[in-house]
Amino acid sequence: MIPTTITLEQLVRRRVDQKTKPLGALGRLEELAVQIALIQQTETPVLQNPHLLVFAGDHGLTAEGISAYPAAVTYGMVRNFIAGGAAINVFCRQNGLNLLVCDVGVDGTFAENTPEFVKFKISPGTRNMRHEPAMTADECAAALDAGKTLVNGVSYRDCNVVGFGEMGIGNTSSAALLMHRFMNRPLQDCIGRGTGLDEAGMQQKRVILQAVADRYVQLTNPMEILAAMGGLEIAAMVGGMIQAAGNGMVILVDGFIATAALLVAQALEPSVRANCVFCHQSDEAGHRLMLDYLNARPLLNLDLRLGEGTGCALAYPLVQAAVNMLNEMATMDVL
Amino acid sequence: MIPTTITLEQLVRRRVDQKTKPLGALGRLEELAVQIALIQQTETPVLQNPHLLVFAGDHGLTAEGISAYPAAVTYGMVRNFIAGGAAINVFCRQNGLNLLVCDVGVDGTFAENTPEFVKFKISPGTRNMRHEPAMTADECAAALDAGKTLVNGVSYRDCNVVGFGEMGIGNTSSAALLMHRFMNRPLQDCIGRGTGLDEAGMQQKRVILQAVADRYVQLTNPMEILAAMGGLEIAAMVGGMIQAAGNGMVILVDGFIATAALLVAQALEPSVRANCVFCHQSDEAGHRLMLDYLNARPLLNLDLRLGEGTGCALAYPLVQAAVNMLNEMATMDVL
Repeated sequence: MIPTTITLEQLVRRRVDQKTKPLGALGRLEELAVQIALIQQTETPVLQNPHLLVFAGDHGLTAEGISAYPAAVTYGMVRNFIAGGAAINVFCRQNGLNLLVCDVGVDGTFAENTPEFVKFKISPGTRNMRHEPAMTADECAAALDAGKTLVNGVSYRDCNVVGFGEMGIGNTSSAALLMHRFMNRPLQDCIGRGTGLDEAGMQQKRVILQAVADRYVQLTNPMEILAAMGGLEIAAMVGGMIQAAGNGMVILVDGFIATAALLVAQALEPSVRANCVFCHQSDEAGHRLMLDYLNARPLLNLDLRLGEGTGCALAYPLVQAAVNMLNEMATMDVL
Repeated sequence: MIPTTITLEQLVRRRVDQKTKPLGALGRLEELAVQIALIQQTETPVLQNPHLLVFAGDHGLTAEGISAYPAAVTYGMVRNFIAGGAAINVFCRQNGLNLLVCDVGVDGTFAENTPEFVKFKISPGTRNMRHEPAMTADECAAALDAGKTLVNGVSYRDCNVVGFGEMGIGNTSSAALLMHRFMNRPLQDCIGRGTGLDEAGMQQKRVILQAVADRYVQLTNPMEILAAMGGLEIAAMVGGMIQAAGNGMVILVDGFIATAALLVAQALEPSVRANCVFCHQSDEAGHRLMLDYLNARPLLNLDLRLGEGTGCALAYPLVQAAVNMLNEMATMDVL
C-alpha cells in the first residue's frame, strides 16, 4: 500500500476550513494565513516583534533636476523620523511595529543618537549616474551588507516579520531604471511623477533617465546594474530582503521603490518571493505593472505614494488578523 | 470690504497639506481625515471608545430553502459570539473595538448573561415573507428602536464611532430584495450566493425571491417595504444608523447586508450618508453595485463575504490612522 501523506499546506487549509465561517468567507485573509504558515513551516504561525526598517540615502542624479523636491529634504525627513513626526512614525506607533531608521547614504551629519537610529553611512549619497555608476562595486556591496546586518540584528531579537521602507529624494528615478532592466519593460512605462513632478519636470525626468539607461545598456549582471543605477537605500533593502528570506521571516513589501528592490533581490535569490506579503499598490504609475509582473495582489489600494514603508505599517493589522484568525477562531464543532 | 472666511473643510485640508509629505501623498487617508473632521465639526477629530454592534435575527423565509446553511446556525453563531470564538471577536479584540451582540430575533433562548450580550428579542425570527410580511409594523418599529437604544447606550459612554454587523441565516435574501426596491435594480442583479449556494440553490433562491418581490410590488412606503421584506436585525441596523448619524457619530459600514440597511436608512433620513465610512467591498455579487449607487469607494477589498461586521473591524485601523495622521504628524516647518 502507498502510505497517505498530507502536506502542511493541506493541513493548514483544512484548519482554515474548520473555522466557524462559510468555506472561503474570509477571502484573501485565508490565503495570507496559509502563506505565513508555509513561511514559518508550522500550522500555528505567530508574528513576533515586528519591525519596520527605513533606509535613507541621497541621489547624485538629483543634480539633473529629476525630483519635485530638493535633495536636502532627505536629511530633513530623516531628522523628522528620528523626532517621531513623520507618517511612518505615526503608523508604526499605532500598529505596534518597531521602527528602525538607518542612514546608509544621507548627505548630512546627524547629531542624534538613539537606539532607533542606526548610523551605517557608506557615502554621503550616490554619484551622478548620468556620468558614472551610482555606486562602486564596493559601495553597493557595503549597502547590501548594511541591510543584511540590520535584518540579522532584529532577527536576533526574535523578530520574524519585517517591513522595508525608504527615504531618498530622487529614488523613483533609480526604481524606474531598475524596473526597466529587471522587468525588460520600455523605460517610459516605468517613469512616474514621484513626489509630484509637473509636466515639464516629467519631460526632464524622461530625457535624463533615457540617457542613463542608454549609458548602461550593455550591463547584464544584476549587481552591476544595481550599482550603476540603484541607490544606497535600495541596495540596503535588497540585502535586507535576501537576508530576511534566508532567516525565514515574513517580508512586508511597500510601494514602488521597495518593489524595485524586490525585483533585484529576486534576480539574485529567487526564493525571496515566497516570503513576500504585498502591502499596497502605490499611486506611482509603474507600481501596478510591477505587481502584475510579480503576480502579486496587494492588501491595500489607498492611492498612497509616500514611501517610508507607510503601506507596510498600514497593512500590518491585516497580516496580524490572518494569523489571529488561524489561532484564535473556534471550529465548527462548537456550533 | 467683503470679509474673507474660510470653511472648516478648507482649514482641515490646509492642515493636511502642511504635514511632512508631498501634497496628496496619503491618498484616501487624507479624504477620510477630512470627512471625519467634518462629521465631528472640528480640526482635531478624535475617535473615542469604538464599538461594533452585531444584531442577530432569524428569517422565516429559510423554510423555502434559500440558504446553504440551516437556520439553527444563527443561534449557534450567537453563542459563538458570546463565547468569543467568531471572526468578529478575534478582529475586534485585535483592533480595540468593543463588541456588543444583540439578539433582536433569534429562534432560541440564551442562558448566557454577559455585559457584551444584549437581550432585545422582538420575536423568534421574522415571518415567512413569501406568505405574509416579514414583520408587522409594530415589530419593525420595535427593531428600529432596539438599534437606536443600543447606539444611544454606547453614545452615553462617549463612543463616537460605531460599526454595524449582523448574523441571520437567510439575510442576503432580505438584503437583495431591499436592494431591488431601494435602488430600483432588476431583482436578479441583486441576488448572490450568500454563504455559498450551489447552482441549484441559486435557482431556488431566484424563484422564491421573485415570488416575494411580486407579492409586495405595490408597496412604496420605505417602512412598509422594510417590514415586508427586511429582517429584525436589518431593521435594528437601520435604526442604529439613523441614530448614530443624529448623534454625530462616525458610522462604519460593513458588507452586503449592512449596506442594504444603509439604503433603507438613507431613504428615511438622507443625512445618514455623510457619516458613513465604507469599510470593505464584499464578494457577494450585488455589493459592488450598491457601492457604485452610493458613490462609495470602500477601504478594503479582500474578497470577504462573512458579515458579522468583520469588514468594519478589519478596516478600523485605517480609520484610526487617518485621524492620527491629522493629529500626530509634524508640519513642513520642521524640515
